[in-house]
Amino acid sequence: MTVVKPNYIRPLDIRHGRIDMSHGAGGKASAQLIEELFLAALDNEFLRQGDDGAVLPLPGLDAAQGRLVMATDAHVVSPLFFPGGDVGCLSVHGTINDVAMLGARPLYLSASFVIEEGFPLADLQRIVRSMAAAAREAGVPVVTGDTKVVEQNKGDGVFISTTGVGVLAKDVEISGRRARPGDVVLLSGTIGDHGVAVLSQRESLAFATTIESDTAALHTLVAVMLAAAPGAVRVLRDPTRGGLATTLNEIARQSGVGVLLNEADIAVKPEVQAACELLGLDPLYVANEGKLIAVVAPEAADTVLAAMRAHPQGAEATQIGKISEDPYHFVQMLTRFGGRRVVDWLSGEQLPRIC
Amino acid sequence: MTVVKPNYIRPLDIRHGRIDMSHGAGGKASAQLIEELFLAALDNEFLRQGDDGAVLPLPGLDAAQGRLVMATDAHVVSPLFFPGGDVGCLSVHGTINDVAMLGARPLYLSASFVIEEGFPLADLQRIVRSMAAAAREAGVPVVTGDTKVVEQNKGDGVFISTTGVGVLAKDVEISGRRARPGDVVLLSGTIGDHGVAVLSQRESLAFATTIESDTAALHTLVAVMLAAAPGAVRVLRDPTRGGLATTLNEIARQSGVGVLLNEADIAVKPEVQAACELLGLDPLYVANEGKLIAVVAPEAADTVLAAMRAHPQGAEATQIGKISEDPYHFVQMLTRFGGRRVVDWLSGEQLPRIC
Repeated sequence: MTVVKPNYIRPLDIRHGRIDMSHGAGGKASAQLIEELFLAALDNEFLRQGDDGAVLPLPGLDAAQGRLVMATDAHVVSPLFFPGGDVGCLSVHGTINDVAMLGARPLYLSASFVIEEGFPLADLQRIVRSMAAAAREAGVPVVTGDTKVVEQNKGDGVFISTTGVGVLAKDVEISGRRARPGDVVLLSGTIGDHGVAVLSQRESLAFATTIESDTAALHTLVAVMLAAAPGAVRVLRDPTRGGLATTLNEIARQSGVGVLLNEADIAVKPEVQAACELLGLDPLYVANEGKLIAVVAPEAADTVLAAMRAHPQGAEATQIGKISEDPYHFVQMLTRFGGRRVVDWLSGEQLPRIC
Repeated sequence: MTVVKPNYIRPLDIRHGRIDMSHGAGGKASAQLIEELFLAALDNEFLRQGDDGAVLPLPGLDAAQGRLVMATDAHVVSPLFFPGGDVGCLSVHGTINDVAMLGARPLYLSASFVIEEGFPLADLQRIVRSMAAAAREAGVPVVTGDTKVVEQNKGDGVFISTTGVGVLAKDVEISGRRARPGDVVLLSGTIGDHGVAVLSQRESLAFATTIESDTAALHTLVAVMLAAAPGAVRVLRDPTRGGLATTLNEIARQSGVGVLLNEADIAVKPEVQAACELLGLDPLYVANEGKLIAVVAPEAADTVLAAMRAHPQGAEATQIGKISEDPYHFVQMLTRFGGRRVVDWLSGEQLPRIC
């Protein structure tokens, strides 16, 4: 008798395989590529933390004062300009958020640009000015950078990689590995706005209302949450590529738990819902760039939720579910109709080049 | 009467201009793009340092113990594999060197990948393994990363952006702004190896001898130099894009000085010299990835040179010139034939996509 492991995935065929768009979509294929190719080669205790950034000791940094946090993101969004933002501010917000999701205070950013020959200087200036405005507003300066140029049709306008560093206070321990059964799952607002804004621009779809990206830096929201209930926030994650569903699956796997969601508590703007229906998308899998998920100790959930709602970026925060015991690490959802369904990982590409 | 300023450059035409390959070549056009577009928008005290990385205060890091250093580089070298290295080890060495050139001890790297759809997994594995080996050998781990995928003909194999952080000891002050008339200019070895290795691979040129890239991490060489004569090393710079000539022009401009070189003291391997003659290149402008220039207080020059020569990566180090007073900030060279010529900035693209 053959026993198939649940969640079995065929290993990458490294000898004959090729990169396809799904490897960049943030779902199962991305996770597999990272595990079997990147982690296998680069393995070290910091990469193995498995979060969207690394927590690092720093010689000379008083352990009583904190640790260093470092996170990086490549931004290949297409189109470069979309309602509510552009690749410039997105590349500032995205990396600040990765640093903030470890509970750290973001301090500095670096930026590297790969620009396609022929790209208009006016567009480049607009992008760099948008970065500058986002960095100023967040109080996190771009302190160093690099610029490379590639021939036409060897790039696509501009790709921007940003890296952020920050400091993590001594008593803060936040990681995708820390969710426990009984914990409460909070979500800071509506989902799907960013992905639908980019896609509608890309496909030149005109809806009655313009749907804007939610791109924003979330570090001040994180700061008020941590201050409201010290030690109570166990996981923070921004549901970008792969959306809420994929991010919750990552947390479930990292922590070895299950997640039980209430569909009715997950807010989607009516115009985003309508656009998703038209485009055949499930908002649970659509990228966000200004929202966060928090897994919080149950006794502090109300306090943290109140702190979120008092902050402009968390005004529409809700409790969307609970962490459960589950040997299969499933994310399940109680539907509006009273049923229950498994919310799986994004398995291929739903929306390529969304961030 | 019209007075034309020496070194006058027509400002960028941002409204109608477009990016061309020269903007990425590391010469005059790159410097102009950075100044008029990037610095103008992102301006802050750290970017204004004007070095290949930034020196940063860190809250909680005891000022007696040091400061943080951060540097970033995008790597778009073509072809991805070349004699002596590949984009993987190059992206580790390049960023470690940028951190080391500020006199700091490199501690951690981040890496972001933009991969073209259809890229063979076997090639990706070879690149990532090369990164891993380079990081292990240097003792600087890759602690976090990101992977994005773009469609065919929207990228070119793999682009890798790396960011490095390190700590800078209290008493170390190294910057392109610190050269003074009378200082001595040291060079750690032969020039032109990397650029010629990549170009010969790209053009499928077969020479009698294979010319290998000099790609290497230079932080241990820097450490012995700093230890040999504390406080005596004023400038460190690795002459990558634009080569020795462009890097010395940058230092001259940053410090407001001139440079006087002796052609006879600048070593070029005979096979590199022969290849340059065949290809119509001047080795002074060809990229290096494992060499450094040091500007050193005259009284300590012999001590620092001896320390360099005792290190494998500085075995062929020489004194190549001196810093002079010069209101025009010229780099000049005493030729082998007894003449004197101005060694100008690289003005356009000599070798695109060399790193």
